[in-house]
Amino acid sequence: MLKYQEVATKIQQAIYEHNLPKDTQLPNIEGLIQQYQVSRSTIIKALNRLERHGVIYQIQGSGIFVRQPKKRGYLNFLESHGFTVDLNDLPGASQVFNVDVVQPSAKVRENLHCEDDEQVYYIKRLRLVEGKVYGFEQSYYRKKIVTYLNREIAENSIFSYVKDICKINIGFSDKYFKAIKLDEEIAPYLGLNPGDPALCVEEIFYTTAGEPFDFSQIIYHYDNAQFYVQSHSK
Amino acid sequence: MLKYQEVATKIQQAIYEHNLPKDTQLPNIEGLIQQYQVSRSTIIKALNRLERHGVIYQIQGSGIFVRQPKKRGYLNFLESHGFTVDLNDLPGASQVFNVDVVQPSAKVRENLHCEDDEQVYYIKRLRLVEGKVYGFEQSYYRKKIVTYLNREIAENSIFSYVKDICKINIGFSDKYFKAIKLDEEIAPYLGLNPGDPALCVEEIFYTTAGEPFDFSQIIYHYDNAQFYVQSHSK
Repeated sequence: MLKYQEVATKIQQAIYEHNLPKDTQLPNIEGLIQQYQVSRSTIIKALNRLERHGVIYQIQGSGIFVRQPKKRGYLNFLESHGFTVDLNDLPGASQVFNVDVVQPSAKVRENLHCEDDEQVYYIKRLRLVEGKVYGFEQSYYRKKIVTYLNREIAENSIFSYVKDICKINIGFSDKYFKAIKLDEEIAPYLGLNPGDPALCVEEIFYTTAGEPFDFSQIIYHYDNAQFYVQSHSK
Repeated sequence: MLKYQEVATKIQQAIYEHNLPKDTQLPNIEGLIQQYQVSRSTIIKALNRLERHGVIYQIQGSGIFVRQPKKRGYLNFLESHGFTVDLNDLPGASQVFNVDVVQPSAKVRENLHCEDDEQVYYIKRLRLVEGKVYGFEQSYYRKKIVTYLNREIAENSIFSYVKDICKINIGFSDKYFKAIKLDEEIAPYLGLNPGDPALCVEEIFYTTAGEPFDFSQIIYHYDNAQFYVQSHSK
């Protein structure tokens, strides 16, 4: 973690630990330099990060203020691969159905830019929060990049494993989503009926080198899973 | 528009005009300084903006590359208030039902932090793209901030009007969303049946000074409206 990220995390923790309400004014830049004993440019980078992440807003010439904290029980849509990270106020779990090595379908191959004879890990699991079904996930990892996966890893955070153990740098992702009608195959996994609504999210994750390594489809329970996004015009 | 934003826009236009495919390498920073005749720090800011907006990715020590451009027909979820801006490859329109001044409901008052006797503009409209219904929108603007609105404005872009005519600086927004089952009231607007799926998005927009001025609820047609988000781990 870079210095400015560390400082950003500390400022964010301070806000959440003290439950600072929206519009609370934080110390100015000079004050933060004193408090965290880092350079001005580190503080500015940290503040810009917190602004992008929806934690604070800055008014030129006036100060730094706390933004509305996220509502409990809402998933941060931009960090939803961090299921466990994001729902750290709620206990999450995964029920894993399979972890298999397979030949990818045409759709998976296209999304992951697979070569002809390439194999992928195929993982099917149910995501649960406080015992409630949040979503049904099918994900595909390129074996040439994520060389090993097993059930135990899939029961916890695959992304923590990919980052911390495989040392893969996760760079960016493309997400596509829409509301859908559940079909007969998926509905039972969510305890719903065919025809019921769901949110279908497909996402491709790339390494920092721009190589796609994971394609996931999650179908979210329409009543249990709700999301928030904090955006900033900058 | 600030200098770095202008340069970012020019670089983005160049990528889209030439239809540069994913992973195309752009000139390095020195080359871009030459090309756009601006300072190094302006180029760096412009590149960071493009990276955040999902247009490029940068590999340390290796270069600057084009990201996958968005798929045609998908709405950019983070810029969806820019309906007209975002769908500039498709002709969009609004069918306005009413533009009224009303006393806000408790829900609207809470989301907009209204004072007791405050009034709001209430606008109900259908959003269309290429003649297809995308979504049914109900939005509420605080009259003390957006002092005047009419049907003609609502038929075009309220946000352009708010920015360019009212000179309100739009700072950030909080978005909350989930899949829902359509009820009997809303379904006919979308040409769908009660019980059909939809994506319900509620959003609160704030000025750069942190004051909420618009609360909108859009219910999107599950088959016509699809979205994308490009995110970056930074």
